[in-house]
Amino acid sequence: MTHRIAIIGASGYTGAELIRLIATHPSFEIRALAANSRAGQEMAAVFPHLRHLDLPKLVTWEEIDFGGIDLCFCALPHKTSQEVISQLPEHLKIVDLSADFRLRDPEAYAQWYGNAHAATQMQKEAVYGLTEFYREEIALARLVAGTGCNAATGQFALRPLIAAGAIGLDDIILDLKCGVSGAGRSLKENLLHAELSEGTNAYAVGGTHRHLGEFDQEFSAIAGREVRVQFTPHLLPMNRGILATAYVSGEAETVHGALAAAYADEPFLHVLPMGETPSTHHVRGSNFCHIGVTGDRIGGRAIVVAALDNLTKGSSGQAVQNANLMLGEAETAGLMLAPCFP
Amino acid sequence: MTHRIAIIGASGYTGAELIRLIATHPSFEIRALAANSRAGQEMAAVFPHLRHLDLPKLVTWEEIDFGGIDLCFCALPHKTSQEVISQLPEHLKIVDLSADFRLRDPEAYAQWYGNAHAATQMQKEAVYGLTEFYREEIALARLVAGTGCNAATGQFALRPLIAAGAIGLDDIILDLKCGVSGAGRSLKENLLHAELSEGTNAYAVGGTHRHLGEFDQEFSAIAGREVRVQFTPHLLPMNRGILATAYVSGEAETVHGALAAAYADEPFLHVLPMGETPSTHHVRGSNFCHIGVTGDRIGGRAIVVAALDNLTKGSSGQAVQNANLMLGEAETAGLMLAPCFP
Amino acid sequence: MTHRIAIIGASGYTGAELIRLIATHPSFEIRALAANSRAGQEMAAVFPHLRHLDLPKLVTWEEIDFGGIDLCFCALPHKTSQEVISQLPEHLKIVDLSADFRLRDPEAYAQWYGNAHAATQMQKEAVYGLTEFYREEIALARLVAGTGCNAATGQFALRPLIAAGAIGLDDIILDLKCGVSGAGRSLKENLLHAELSEGTNAYAVGGTHRHLGEFDQEFSAIAGREVRVQFTPHLLPMNRGILATAYVSGEAETVHGALAAAYADEPFLHVLPMGETPSTHHVRGSNFCHIGVTGDRIGGRAIVVAALDNLTKGSSGQAVQNANLMLGEAETAGLMLAPCFP
Amino acid sequence: MTHRIAIIGASGYTGAELIRLIATHPSFEIRALAANSRAGQEMAAVFPHLRHLDLPKLVTWEEIDFGGIDLCFCALPHKTSQEVISQLPEHLKIVDLSADFRLRDPEAYAQWYGNAHAATQMQKEAVYGLTEFYREEIALARLVAGTGCNAATGQFALRPLIAAGAIGLDDIILDLKCGVSGAGRSLKENLLHAELSEGTNAYAVGGTHRHLGEFDQEFSAIAGREVRVQFTPHLLPMNRGILATAYVSGEAETVHGALAAAYADEPFLHVLPMGETPSTHHVRGSNFCHIGVTGDRIGGRAIVVAALDNLTKGSSGQAVQNANLMLGEAETAGLMLAPCFP
Repeated sequence: MTHRIAIIGASGYTGAELIRLIATHPSFEIRALAANSRAGQEMAAVFPHLRHLDLPKLVTWEEIDFGGIDLCFCALPHKTSQEVISQLPEHLKIVDLSADFRLRDPEAYAQWYGNAHAATQMQKEAVYGLTEFYREEIALARLVAGTGCNAATGQFALRPLIAAGAIGLDDIILDLKCGVSGAGRSLKENLLHAELSEGTNAYAVGGTHRHLGEFDQEFSAIAGREVRVQFTPHLLPMNRGILATAYVSGEAETVHGALAAAYADEPFLHVLPMGETPSTHHVRGSNFCHIGVTGDRIGGRAIVVAALDNLTKGSSGQAVQNANLMLGEAETAGLMLAPCFP
Repeated sequence: MTHRIAIIGASGYTGAELIRLIATHPSFEIRALAANSRAGQEMAAVFPHLRHLDLPKLVTWEEIDFGGIDLCFCALPHKTSQEVISQLPEHLKIVDLSADFRLRDPEAYAQWYGNAHAATQMQKEAVYGLTEFYREEIALARLVAGTGCNAATGQFALRPLIAAGAIGLDDIILDLKCGVSGAGRSLKENLLHAELSEGTNAYAVGGTHRHLGEFDQEFSAIAGREVRVQFTPHLLPMNRGILATAYVSGEAETVHGALAAAYADEPFLHVLPMGETPSTHHVRGSNFCHIGVTGDRIGGRAIVVAALDNLTKGSSGQAVQNANLMLGEAETAGLMLAPCFP
Repeated sequence: MTHRIAIIGASGYTGAELIRLIATHPSFEIRALAANSRAGQEMAAVFPHLRHLDLPKLVTWEEIDFGGIDLCFCALPHKTSQEVISQLPEHLKIVDLSADFRLRDPEAYAQWYGNAHAATQMQKEAVYGLTEFYREEIALARLVAGTGCNAATGQFALRPLIAAGAIGLDDIILDLKCGVSGAGRSLKENLLHAELSEGTNAYAVGGTHRHLGEFDQEFSAIAGREVRVQFTPHLLPMNRGILATAYVSGEAETVHGALAAAYADEPFLHVLPMGETPSTHHVRGSNFCHIGVTGDRIGGRAIVVAALDNLTKGSSGQAVQNANLMLGEAETAGLMLAPCFP
Repeated sequence: MTHRIAIIGASGYTGAELIRLIATHPSFEIRALAANSRAGQEMAAVFPHLRHLDLPKLVTWEEIDFGGIDLCFCALPHKTSQEVISQLPEHLKIVDLSADFRLRDPEAYAQWYGNAHAATQMQKEAVYGLTEFYREEIALARLVAGTGCNAATGQFALRPLIAAGAIGLDDIILDLKCGVSGAGRSLKENLLHAELSEGTNAYAVGGTHRHLGEFDQEFSAIAGREVRVQFTPHLLPMNRGILATAYVSGEAETVHGALAAAYADEPFLHVLPMGETPSTHHVRGSNFCHIGVTGDRIGGRAIVVAALDNLTKGSSGQAVQNANLMLGEAETAGLMLAPCFP
């Protein structure tokens, strides 16, 4: 059975990544592509690497006839997303890739995003889209909120550890190294090749990154108490990839065991043998996440490192994975592409 | 129907790329992987990005039971390749990715490669693997010789022009820009990140690059007279991709028309609208080749630019395309992966 | 003796490069820095890598008291430059880094830049700033026009050959590979790291790049007849560096000899031994230009490759070299910084 | 007064960087260059970017006439270094860039480096070369041991904090991001451009990196008790630069104040205004180190980020700085080169 797909916000990187994945998906068919600022253009003009595909011309989202659509991916900027989604017809299944429906608490949303939520009712219904941990809810959901890419990486490293009581909750440090595509196709000086290549810097230092809202919500829910992690992202001269280095108190063997047990049957999450470390090189362009655990020379301290591709497993791959569940397809459909190395 | 595949030389980049492509191929199944220097190891140790695949352990090629193999890809260094291939059983279909069977003339081989050919009989039987131009012979061949990646790029730009008489034959200049993976996984100083990134240089200047043997052979055959092009490759700080800039005498419209006509029905070759130029960014990780034509301000001069991914369309993708033909599958099977951008 | 220096247009890359060079110049002192869009800011806010220097705050150019300035570098966009420069006081020596005074012929200017020149009188007086070829005029000039960075590279490769009659004039092809800093600190999509890294493309194909105006002017003047070269620039994933590959008809020995003779006493131009090829890696951050010559396998054809750093020898280094001459300093003062490798 | 300089181990990156810096040093003159594996070659063959310099030909170190040398830089691999240095004449001042004389305790040396020290007497005399903290001893020393580049970065971030009692000593975490030139010019698979670019990974995870020996020695000495930090380096796709992110318990204002006070008069160490973060982009190719402090959202937690160029301030620049002191020159002589950006 073929599912009819629309993408709103098709002119950004996550939009392009959705199309890349759907291009070889066995049962998804793209019926409409919207990007209001580029409406009227061919996708090949916006993303020439998609030239070989027979894609519909870009339109405004208002022009889409949603009667012929089963599921819509929304890859709009936050705030715009909630405005658009609240106007979409009721029958439509929606996977939102923005930040708008990740936080369940309107106050938390307002605190992290600086504005009141315009669709609080939908906010309550939305299911948090970290597939491996919300599978059943996602399968039944109308609206799934894709997670932050940093938030996904950190949670893959830490959720099973918090759930298993394998680590201390008061001294978790997450140091992230992020590729630049996570910042989107935005014209900012620090994203220019001349400014970004050949160097690195931290950003959003001190606990100001919005993905902390997701960590707070999720980790506290698992632990049954408030958990606050320290989280510093760094911008690296690479396009794709997030490497999360988590410093935790706990026995390395216990930590490794908890992760291995949690992900034993997961098709996309691979826990490496004890002491091995993953690399973003080895997941690029794929929906896989590699996780490694090593004990520190300081007793009772462990390092957990998780690697994934922010555009795929961290965003559009996750979105397709969720759409598969929502549409009754195999969860892995269209997502077994091997990483592109070198 | 599932075809049983072996790969000899699986520890290099073209070997890894074959596995990446076959991983999502609908009817190929990898039954044996050989890499004599790494025999006994798991592929995940050699290429961790293939960790998620259930692959046979690496063996020596002599250990393979070829009775259970339908087609063998050979990704060995040149010279070694001819020695191994001449010992393979007769029933086996072979796609060779080395340089050993590209030149039909033993003297030309000896001149470019510096040694006498050790399997001249097979050399005569081998079909040159530029799929779009040798389709019928490839479908019937036992042994197909994959082309040089530079040689493929230049030929996609120029063959239809020579065939159509659209350009002068005595002043063709090919200036190539090549990613580093074409040099293989070799421990050479100039391939180190610290030496290669952030700069560029020409190499094999003056008509000494071995792929010239292929240009000479093929262009002369098409033209029915000797054709000698000037060809300078440049090493660029990027992993994948070849951009060939061809300077030719001829009318741009005629040139564009000849290419558009030749590739009108080709699934992997895309001729851009007149005056547009391709980019290696837009074919990375895919089997597509984009070609653009522009007239120069100097009357009667045109520039043809072709872009492809050296590991895919220039090597392993071409090899799978040829294997599809040899095994009676759809030529595009497993090869419609969209480029990975950004 | 200390010379008092002003820089107008200090917030761009060529402005920053001027400051980098002047920072260790023995007799230049920066007295004023202008950047109208950033007036009021500290340089450390605009270019944090200059934080250690004790620099004047940015002002508008109109605020500068030129009474206390001996020489002014102008690093403004073209067109703006002519408007500003025509208002500067008469006593002031000026090195302009824009394109505004490179072409001596107002019609040629209008043709390549699309507008009539607003200061045709100054246009006539300006000296073309290719130091090695205009030394005496530069030493006496009030206004020196810095060359295009591509134009400089191509001319270093070709001027002595045209002057010596060592090559044919009707089939010169210049294929350039350019780092991205040549495009300036501009917010354009194709200059983003995510769009530019890991790939390459040609641009301004077909003889439309404005630096052709300089080639036409200079080569025709040397040859005493009209000379039109074919010139295609390519954008590479690197920040600094231009590699010019020139394809010429001529005997390689004669070509090499003409270059070696012309540059024998030049401190910044190094002709490599016959058959060796330069690399932009080896001139990065310096004022040097390396040039190599190789004969092609096709008799009577040679390849000349020239490498320089577009921001230094191609722009700000050249500007300081010219300023040294204009102010009676040693031509090499402040410019003997070794390249920064790796 | 001109000081006569020799460099042993001139064919590696730190050797080349020494030459780059000495090239514009006002009072150092290179009299001998040794590299036993390349003896007999010109430096231009080993490092073409030094082609413009009039340098002595490479010899073996045994061939050097040390009678005519005032100071010798030793840039050999560890273990080789102690063997060579113990044979050098007594009058010679020595700056060693290897790891051989960094640890004062022979047992600690044996533990971290896996072999007994072959020159324990010299080991005792050697002064630890972190200039800003050992100035007086360095000025009087015969043998100065250059620090590890990671060790330098971490110490610049943390020494004043430990000394001032501004932070807790039992939960210090150092997460480092390192450019690849720190690994030297070694032919290793993971240092190839194709393997390293476009991705990142941690290495020496779990407290196994040898620079921990330096942290242990120095931090414990300052604190007057044993201090053990947790330290994880990461390899980044960039050539130069180390970014150290230190997670500490302590009040951000106190932390910032302690650093600002300690470095108020330092020419090369710049503490940014509270809340600003440094970037390796802004110190590339220079001897500067930028340090930023930010308080975390979690009370009593701060993040200190330090950025330097591993080849300059982390190694060869530090070595020249020390040599300046040992030879009675201004500490900053030859070292005020501005960073090379972009």
